[in-house]
Amino acid sequence: MQAVETKVETKKDRSPRNGVDTPTLFATLDALKGQPELAKFQFRVSNRWVRGTNSRSRMESFTGAGGEHAHKRVFEYDADHHAVLVGTDEGPTPVEFLLHGLAACITAGIANIAAARGVTLTEVTSRIEGDIDLRGILGLSKDVRNGYQKIRATFDIKGDAPAEKLREIVEQSRARSAVFDVLTNGVPVEVAVNAA
Amino acid sequence: MQAVETKVETKKDRSPRNGVDTPTLFATLDALKGQPELAKFQFRVSNRWVRGTNSRSRMESFTGAGGEHAHKRVFEYDADHHAVLVGTDEGPTPVEFLLHGLAACITAGIANIAAARGVTLTEVTSRIEGDIDLRGILGLSKDVRNGYQKIRATFDIKGDAPAEKLREIVEQSRARSAVFDVLTNGVPVEVAVNAA
Repeated sequence: MQAVETKVETKKDRSPRNGVDTPTLFATLDALKGQPELAKFQFRVSNRWVRGTNSRSRMESFTGAGGEHAHKRVFEYDADHHAVLVGTDEGPTPVEFLLHGLAACITAGIANIAAARGVTLTEVTSRIEGDIDLRGILGLSKDVRNGYQKIRATFDIKGDAPAEKLREIVEQSRARSAVFDVLTNGVPVEVAVNAA
Repeated sequence: MQAVETKVETKKDRSPRNGVDTPTLFATLDALKGQPELAKFQFRVSNRWVRGTNSRSRMESFTGAGGEHAHKRVFEYDADHHAVLVGTDEGPTPVEFLLHGLAACITAGIANIAAARGVTLTEVTSRIEGDIDLRGILGLSKDVRNGYQKIRATFDIKGDAPAEKLREIVEQSRARSAVFDVLTNGVPVEVAVNAA
């Protein structure tokens, strides 16, 4: 009985789940183990100022897995300041996109990790809040930083596993999240300017 | 002659420019100087997992300037992994949104600062690149971080001021950018989980 259960479990574990193509995910991991240079990626965004605090970014392509890849369509996003901040609200404020990146990164990891662990998810929602004191960016206080002072993320997860196992999946995703790492640990940013 | 020029300059400096309502911007600064509690903002995003690595975020409202404010419409954005990363590319990867936030934040600041300094801009474009080694998030190497290892931003700026003044505007915007601060210095992120 134990052997049968183990066999069933193993088969279950490797099948696609949560919309994740688990066999291909494991095959990709194996390929990268053998050729670590394939794991070097470069993502990029080009941005054009529109008017006032409104600008628009394009994400078209990136480099990785040894080559250049196009997104299946060009993604374009506006950002702006709200009227309260003397903008025209043509898009969210730039800092809101950081919260979107955090939610999406941890959520993608949750789906992948759950699939790899044979857990079927039924719902994952999250709410991310960032506290910021605008006296920093407005230059009204030297004691106030420019960016968020604190970010809080709350995940609600439902699936066919005990609560403890679901919590471990979220924790593993957080521990392996690229966006969580960047936001909590920071990254060197080099800024160059061509002026004419 | 000097006095006249100064007068013209002063008048010019305070007029709206670059699509920035400069008088209102200065009035807002004055209001915040007098009531610093108005500068406390909370931005938020809610996210729902869709399928696989695809999730969708909503930005609807935020708190600040002593009250609750709605965006003029609900903004919704998908994020996903590309097929190369075993996703379905329904949106950019989460880490690409960090680059969008950086470009948009510095660009909004450039427009505001140029307006405050009486400089009319004709074009601001930027290109942001982020290098990442996916062995980190995939757990294939303990020596590789999860997030970007380096971000490079290049701004091209044109306007009715000498190149040096235009460069100073970009530099001042970088120095006061909320997103630049968060990305380079990091921020505490608290993650809570409700599992069922």
